[in-house]
Amino acid sequence: MLNNKDLSIGSKMYQWATDLFPICRSITGNGLRQTLRYFQNLLPDLKIHEVPSGTQAFDWTVPDEWNIKDAFICDEQGQKIVDFLQNNLHVVGYSESVDRWMTFEELDRHLYSLPEQPTAIPYITSYYKRRWGFCVSENQRQQLRQNPLAKYYVKIDSSLQPGSLTYGELIIPGETKYEVLLSTYVCHPSMANNELSGPVVTTALAEYLSKQHLNRYTYRILFLPETIGSIVYLSQNWQTMKQQVIAGFVITCVGDRRTYSYVGSRLGNTLADKVVLNILNHKVPNYQQYSFLNRGSDERQYCSPGIDLPVCSICRSKYGEYLEYHTSLDDLSFISSEGLQESYEILRECIFTLENNFIYKTKVFCEPQLGKRGLYPTLSTKESGKQVRNMMNLIAYADGEHDLIEIADIMGIPATDLISLAQILLENNILQKMNNENN
Amino acid sequence: MLNNKDLSIGSKMYQWATDLFPICRSITGNGLRQTLRYFQNLLPDLKIHEVPSGTQAFDWTVPDEWNIKDAFICDEQGQKIVDFLQNNLHVVGYSESVDRWMTFEELDRHLYSLPEQPTAIPYITSYYKRRWGFCVSENQRQQLRQNPLAKYYVKIDSSLQPGSLTYGELIIPGETKYEVLLSTYVCHPSMANNELSGPVVTTALAEYLSKQHLNRYTYRILFLPETIGSIVYLSQNWQTMKQQVIAGFVITCVGDRRTYSYVGSRLGNTLADKVVLNILNHKVPNYQQYSFLNRGSDERQYCSPGIDLPVCSICRSKYGEYLEYHTSLDDLSFISSEGLQESYEILRECIFTLENNFIYKTKVFCEPQLGKRGLYPTLSTKESGKQVRNMMNLIAYADGEHDLIEIADIMGIPATDLISLAQILLENNILQKMNNENN
Amino acid sequence: MLNNKDLSIGSKMYQWATDLFPICRSITGNGLRQTLRYFQNLLPDLKIHEVPSGTQAFDWTVPDEWNIKDAFICDEQGQKIVDFLQNNLHVVGYSESVDRWMTFEELDRHLYSLPEQPTAIPYITSYYKRRWGFCVSENQRQQLRQNPLAKYYVKIDSSLQPGSLTYGELIIPGETKYEVLLSTYVCHPSMANNELSGPVVTTALAEYLSKQHLNRYTYRILFLPETIGSIVYLSQNWQTMKQQVIAGFVITCVGDRRTYSYVGSRLGNTLADKVVLNILNHKVPNYQQYSFLNRGSDERQYCSPGIDLPVCSICRSKYGEYLEYHTSLDDLSFISSEGLQESYEILRECIFTLENNFIYKTKVFCEPQLGKRGLYPTLSTKESGKQVRNMMNLIAYADGEHDLIEIADIMGIPATDLISLAQILLENNILQKMNNENN
Repeated sequence: MLNNKDLSIGSKMYQWATDLFPICRSITGNGLRQTLRYFQNLLPDLKIHEVPSGTQAFDWTVPDEWNIKDAFICDEQGQKIVDFLQNNLHVVGYSESVDRWMTFEELDRHLYSLPEQPTAIPYITSYYKRRWGFCVSENQRQQLRQNPLAKYYVKIDSSLQPGSLTYGELIIPGETKYEVLLSTYVCHPSMANNELSGPVVTTALAEYLSKQHLNRYTYRILFLPETIGSIVYLSQNWQTMKQQVIAGFVITCVGDRRTYSYVGSRLGNTLADKVVLNILNHKVPNYQQYSFLNRGSDERQYCSPGIDLPVCSICRSKYGEYLEYHTSLDDLSFISSEGLQESYEILRECIFTLENNFIYKTKVFCEPQLGKRGLYPTLSTKESGKQVRNMMNLIAYADGEHDLIEIADIMGIPATDLISLAQILLENNILQKMNNENN
Repeated sequence: MLNNKDLSIGSKMYQWATDLFPICRSITGNGLRQTLRYFQNLLPDLKIHEVPSGTQAFDWTVPDEWNIKDAFICDEQGQKIVDFLQNNLHVVGYSESVDRWMTFEELDRHLYSLPEQPTAIPYITSYYKRRWGFCVSENQRQQLRQNPLAKYYVKIDSSLQPGSLTYGELIIPGETKYEVLLSTYVCHPSMANNELSGPVVTTALAEYLSKQHLNRYTYRILFLPETIGSIVYLSQNWQTMKQQVIAGFVITCVGDRRTYSYVGSRLGNTLADKVVLNILNHKVPNYQQYSFLNRGSDERQYCSPGIDLPVCSICRSKYGEYLEYHTSLDDLSFISSEGLQESYEILRECIFTLENNFIYKTKVFCEPQLGKRGLYPTLSTKESGKQVRNMMNLIAYADGEHDLIEIADIMGIPATDLISLAQILLENNILQKMNNENN
Repeated sequence: MLNNKDLSIGSKMYQWATDLFPICRSITGNGLRQTLRYFQNLLPDLKIHEVPSGTQAFDWTVPDEWNIKDAFICDEQGQKIVDFLQNNLHVVGYSESVDRWMTFEELDRHLYSLPEQPTAIPYITSYYKRRWGFCVSENQRQQLRQNPLAKYYVKIDSSLQPGSLTYGELIIPGETKYEVLLSTYVCHPSMANNELSGPVVTTALAEYLSKQHLNRYTYRILFLPETIGSIVYLSQNWQTMKQQVIAGFVITCVGDRRTYSYVGSRLGNTLADKVVLNILNHKVPNYQQYSFLNRGSDERQYCSPGIDLPVCSICRSKYGEYLEYHTSLDDLSFISSEGLQESYEILRECIFTLENNFIYKTKVFCEPQLGKRGLYPTLSTKESGKQVRNMMNLIAYADGEHDLIEIADIMGIPATDLISLAQILLENNILQKMNNENN
């Protein structure tokens, strides 16, 4: 049963995020590797894989590995006015090296800022086209513009050369080969909600699942660089996953407390969608609902035609929908222990529901006589309790065709309300579990 | 055709209810037997069956037969302050015998009242657990409480011993073996809407159906003790019924005039649901709609998984939804001739619609030339009449796939509006009846 | 691509309507023949067919051919007070001959007027029952009534004798045998919206289609007398049409500018419905939507049971829904070049969409790397453009099951927005066309 809230999990997750925040991650490189090792420390069975640059993955090729040591802009006084070591968002991801004096005019063509958010440093990358650039606040840029004739010493000490793409994979075997997929991404530099919240919540869930005696489902838990990582992973595992994954969740942007969001799968009708909708509809009914048209993370790959895995997303403030998104304002103050903990609990509830989502069939024709089993009041009065009604409804709809979530949806209640009732009815020999492929 | 309203049917039904009101009925016993013999007097072909105590019926066992001769509470002055012979609701159904003086304290543990309805005697039963008890008004109980040290002589002269469960069954053979089921229950003591209204309306419908030359469908009309009666009946007849019943109605709470109610079948999509919805939507559009989650009568058995008969209910004020329900306030003043008559007519209209619900197919391609048959105005003007439009629409949708009710639903009209039109088109060789299983 | 609006097409169509307005058309006869020859002049491949009187067509028989030379009512002073040569609506269609003096009383029994529209001459016909009659304005009739004893010389010089029913048929062969049907009717005398607008817009569409190098679909374009014409045509062509027609449109009442209307097919779910709804929903979202219950033109035949062609209608002010309908007020001032042009463009857009409505399938698993093909911005910023999003969504839903219109409906955009994107993706080897029956 799922009932003890370990309130310290939120603080633990927040501490992990704090530890990892300063690291400069990208879709390859040592920052990514260091982050995965941090999680491996927490999850000893996490395997870290290296995929060589140049590896083909469907329509893509694993790019060269990018690493960066330092980057700054100095003014004529030798003052570092922009410093990568202060904030790794300052450098456009995958920037090539540069090391020379230049005019403001030239520099300015390599600066990125957000006029509408003058204090924010934007997050920009250029993975597949060679560029260099610096991201600065609009305020700082305006200041620089006041001195158009100034010269600047610009240095980016980066390398781009054959290496590998790194990802983490944790398989927790269950009773059956059928799998639940948890996928998160670890390629973002110093931003908190997007994206350290996803990795730390996923890690906490993985800890929880590892501690269970034996789960019903096998859990495939992935820490990937976004897009290229999931494409590489799918190119090597999609056939197995297509046969085994019964539901999956992309875990991203789960650290703040402003709202809850749901992003549906491609056609919006998978088991993953059903469980998330049942839980959210009852636990946080005022959540935001987005269709697959508003997708943006690795469900783009998992749900692509031909792959078609049953994957959707739960977020708090969804990527692209909050002002701080992809800027330096998405920092550790934007997320909280409470936000992480709540997301963890909702996801754990989805998992718990899936673990208990069977197709049941009532073993007797007509209503069973619950009274003789002590499950029904022996005295008929005007009203019967909610618990008894739920039990009778579960029996009435346990027809071997509807699963527990579908029955809960018919009844307009959270599926979790039916789990212990189903257990009681099973023990009383009133229900039987049907052989479904996921059983 | 269904057009003559015999207004005296309502009065006749009300008289039956008045005759039957005083009898103390239960799920077994002489009151039940006496009630069925009253109906047998009206419906000579009604068969009365006895099922011995101890008979197994799915998960249930027919209980011992309960009979009661007398019951009262006397005060120390020898005054009968509660008297079963005054109102048979005073005794908890299936009470065991008692015959002794006791303190108020002891008596009080055996009293049932409704604090929120201080003048009402509640209706309570304890069929499957041995108990005894008296039901009194809250007002009376409060009075007794003023004298906590008083003693009372309490007597219940009842017997519970092997006997039988009694039910009535009337089969009216039709052109086909396919059946319409009418089911009502006869196990309630002195209450009027719930439940003498159902039995008397069912009896009037049975009289009407018996008088027809030959119905299309066979009618299976059941007068049962609720729950155990329908379970027993199904345990002996479900296989035949599963093959033959095309629609059925549980007839209960059909005597008052406050509203109309519909209680859907388990998935809400059977022929019974379709005909009721078509009729109610057009005849009494402000009726109350309840899903199967709000069920409460023998549809619980008829629609249970594995049985799955196409059965729903029409009520006036639905059981459980009116204040007088299961109390002495549900008396003969709560129902009326008019209420019974209106319910009778709605149900007769449902039956009439089913009898005429065929799948038709237009025999010619393109529109037939109605003009040459005198069915269409020969002069084209700006407007054509509603009757002609209905006829043209019936022809257009008579595609061998939609039945008459479905076509009426597409057209947004009551199916009864199409019956005579279909007849005209059949006679004019424009439509043909399709072979459907119910034909 | 469909992008150049030839604004002169509207004027051209209006001129055609003006030329044709005076002709007295009916369901047979020389006026009908003359009208078809006018269109044949514009569309040299239009074939004019003659079907002899007496020919059987399903439930109908081709009637005798009706021709009229003159008709008038003279007063005692020899003054023509009603003159067919002034307005051919004055004579009831298919009137038999008359040539004699009569009392006002007798004449009045043969007069038709509209009390609620006192200045309008109604349009009346009596094709299948022998009658004669004059249609006059209610005002004129009131005037005549002031002199009830007057006598009138009444002459109708008409003939009704074996001849033929005439219709026009233009087949424009395409890449495939699969067809789009355009059907309009040419049997109405001097009325403009209903019905010269349909024939002239259909002619303009036929000109447009004839000028294309090679259409994907074959076009079957019909100019028929309403009802009897389409029944005759279907009786001779329905089997071919059932195999080949993938979508069709009845083109009627397309000349005014008050509104747009859609009349659905019988079940409202054909490809024709889908394309029309997609276009109208986005181009003129406040259009009027009518179900097949409000049909009135040749879709009555095309959609009849057993025929079941995928045919619906686009109108401006729909027949039967505007005050001027079937009266002399539906004249050339009621329609306009602009109205005709707009209707032409909407229909051309439907055709253009059908021509480009393929089922596509994405050729690679996971998202293709659009960046390396120059189809995606190489710099990741906070926002991506609408065009790129549409392209990504098209790729995501190009699963070999949804056609372009269905994908556009999922995306909530007009299908036309996807056509050039699909072309680009096809050229870039990202999409492939699936073999669908219409391909």
